[in-house]
Amino acid sequence: METYTEVTDVGIEPKEGGLTSAKGFHAGGFHCGFKRKRPDLGWIYSDTPANTAAVYTTNQFQAAPLQVTKESIAQEKRIQGVLINSAVANACTGEQGLQNAYQMRRWFAEKLGIQPHLVAVNSTGVIGEQLPMDTLAAGIEQINLDDTDEKNFERAILTTDTFTKNVCVQVQIGEEQITIGGAAKGSGMIEPNMATMLAFLTTDAAIEQESLDAALKTAVNKTFNCITVDGDTSTNDTVLVMANGKAMNTPITSRDPNQCRVFTEALTYVCRELAKQIARDGEGATKLIEVNVTGAQLQSDARAIGKAIVGSSLVKTAIYGSDPNWGRIICAIGYSGVALDTCNLEVAIGDIKVVENGMPAAFADGVVTEYLRYNEQIVITVNLHSGTQSASAWGCDLSYDYVKINASYRT
Amino acid sequence: METYTEVTDVGIEPKEGGLTSAKGFHAGGFHCGFKRKRPDLGWIYSDTPANTAAVYTTNQFQAAPLQVTKESIAQEKRIQGVLINSAVANACTGEQGLQNAYQMRRWFAEKLGIQPHLVAVNSTGVIGEQLPMDTLAAGIEQINLDDTDEKNFERAILTTDTFTKNVCVQVQIGEEQITIGGAAKGSGMIEPNMATMLAFLTTDAAIEQESLDAALKTAVNKTFNCITVDGDTSTNDTVLVMANGKAMNTPITSRDPNQCRVFTEALTYVCRELAKQIARDGEGATKLIEVNVTGAQLQSDARAIGKAIVGSSLVKTAIYGSDPNWGRIICAIGYSGVALDTCNLEVAIGDIKVVENGMPAAFADGVVTEYLRYNEQIVITVNLHSGTQSASAWGCDLSYDYVKINASYRT
Repeated sequence: METYTEVTDVGIEPKEGGLTSAKGFHAGGFHCGFKRKRPDLGWIYSDTPANTAAVYTTNQFQAAPLQVTKESIAQEKRIQGVLINSAVANACTGEQGLQNAYQMRRWFAEKLGIQPHLVAVNSTGVIGEQLPMDTLAAGIEQINLDDTDEKNFERAILTTDTFTKNVCVQVQIGEEQITIGGAAKGSGMIEPNMATMLAFLTTDAAIEQESLDAALKTAVNKTFNCITVDGDTSTNDTVLVMANGKAMNTPITSRDPNQCRVFTEALTYVCRELAKQIARDGEGATKLIEVNVTGAQLQSDARAIGKAIVGSSLVKTAIYGSDPNWGRIICAIGYSGVALDTCNLEVAIGDIKVVENGMPAAFADGVVTEYLRYNEQIVITVNLHSGTQSASAWGCDLSYDYVKINASYRT
Repeated sequence: METYTEVTDVGIEPKEGGLTSAKGFHAGGFHCGFKRKRPDLGWIYSDTPANTAAVYTTNQFQAAPLQVTKESIAQEKRIQGVLINSAVANACTGEQGLQNAYQMRRWFAEKLGIQPHLVAVNSTGVIGEQLPMDTLAAGIEQINLDDTDEKNFERAILTTDTFTKNVCVQVQIGEEQITIGGAAKGSGMIEPNMATMLAFLTTDAAIEQESLDAALKTAVNKTFNCITVDGDTSTNDTVLVMANGKAMNTPITSRDPNQCRVFTEALTYVCRELAKQIARDGEGATKLIEVNVTGAQLQSDARAIGKAIVGSSLVKTAIYGSDPNWGRIICAIGYSGVALDTCNLEVAIGDIKVVENGMPAAFADGVVTEYLRYNEQIVITVNLHSGTQSASAWGCDLSYDYVKINASYRT
């Protein structure tokens, strides 16, 4: 069985960095009073309005700030400033919550001296509570655009996360090198009414908005949409990308499919790294699980199977317990909803083939147990032998701590 | 908010009893050697061939015995004997597993002195291991049809279950009283390669096979298809009903919709009680969760919302921790895939309204915490206020013991 490898021949170079690595972006964060002590207000600012695309949660209870951000982007498809608070999600807060989100946008726009529709806002935290507007007003007053530090932004958006999440890459577009950076938060999809996966991406690439939008949708579909912590989709999930053109490359447009492909692959890389960091930081997680599915007829089939496996509580507990339980893996494949020829199925845990032709392969349990016990990143490979399509999915194991974090928050 | 009540005006009388309460049925079980000590071989026998209907797992890795049982039923739509072993599921066992299942059927048919196609077989236990055929042969040899004891059957089909599961009701069909009884097993959908939810139902009602089949599908859809322990669907799930006509009622046929309705409601009652017992016995469970959804436009919508709530790991852990976390409930409703007017939503935990018009209601956290802490059966009621349809779903909480049972089986 071949190990699955993502083909990236476009020369993506990972770098140290994040949101402010791309030219013309500034970001910061600090404690303003929503939380007891930790940073809770984060901001991003671009020197000039940036072409912007975003995707949002499919949960029907979309939080108020999402509606406001959608309206901002709809107006001109450009954003110059982003403001995020943690601790309160402003979700299920009705008309007052919506007015508060508009007020949050207006105040930050005044602070920046720009029009409100150039501002995006978001919130993450407890559902059903109104934003403390006095605290917010005082916080926005405090923002100092010269005090840029992307690490502080990364900290300010966390809730139950145990580490900050960032990524940066560079890639050549024509004559110019462009940079894409990002920051994210996410741990459980919702935790004691604490919500949300958020990712903010910045690039100095010049790219028309339609191409940026297409690139983001492609990237998210292969990355953020392929992670599962507990299967619960929050009310505030957002991925937003801003492109301000400061790299001065010849603008990327749909008339140049090759440039679009290079940019899309670089953006996908950025999204994948953030998605994996989120999966690894799943509540109570001790291991990152990566499932690579190959030999499918459709990419969507490969993705459905990958997600069924990383989403199975029984697979997750088995990996937590270092149990080489291939029966649970093929069981998840069997109920994934994808039609398959079960006789052709191959499954490997690490490099060890555990299922061949749909039946148990000859392997020593102990070898797999060792692999599961001593690796922090567990790779499961599935080959359907029925086509050429492939996809990956990421998740984490299910530990006592998941139950602890989620059962004993209030009691 | 009204409490949801199932309308049953057909005079169903619950009774002590089980599989052998209906006239002409015998059942037993004993230890034959698949397990170390506990009973592991169970049988059911009807004095005469009984009209039979069955539904099976949708998992594509259907175990070998399911194929054999399907063939049996297809031939004449009648079954006289059923043989089940626990400990080995005979799933993912290829051609040899299939031949072993045929042999199992043949041996039991010889024992009963009937034709093989009048026998159904099933297995539950470890996936990927072949049945030890010598043990099985010796076990079948040992069966004594005079030694009938439904309790022994109930014990013989268990795997990780912590208690036996049975039910019995009587209802009037025309001039005659008919009896329906049943036994079931199920705990996790699969556990260290241990599998399966199984239910066997017997009735002395005279009913044409087509009506029996329709009644079973209706009943299963409202009951067994509405329970969730961990979302994993096993390779061996089967619900099978045998009707031998010994009650001598005027046969129930589709030409008498009223009689069909009475029988279907009684069968649904039986299935619901078994389903709830299975949910309550979910691995590591400390509480049964019942979700009643009303005011939906479609029954399927109500069911989807109920299943999303009982299937949410975050709701399950919150209930384990007695956390009145309504945010997780509405979050699950929001991602259930059902379009709804979020502004009309009402949610109650027990009798306490926690969400009204899609926003938090005025309630004291402490009262809900008390309710969650001191009740073993937790009722969540959801009213969508958008139609007249309703449905229920059942599940259990998610405890440390679920992780323990599923993580530490082999290690």
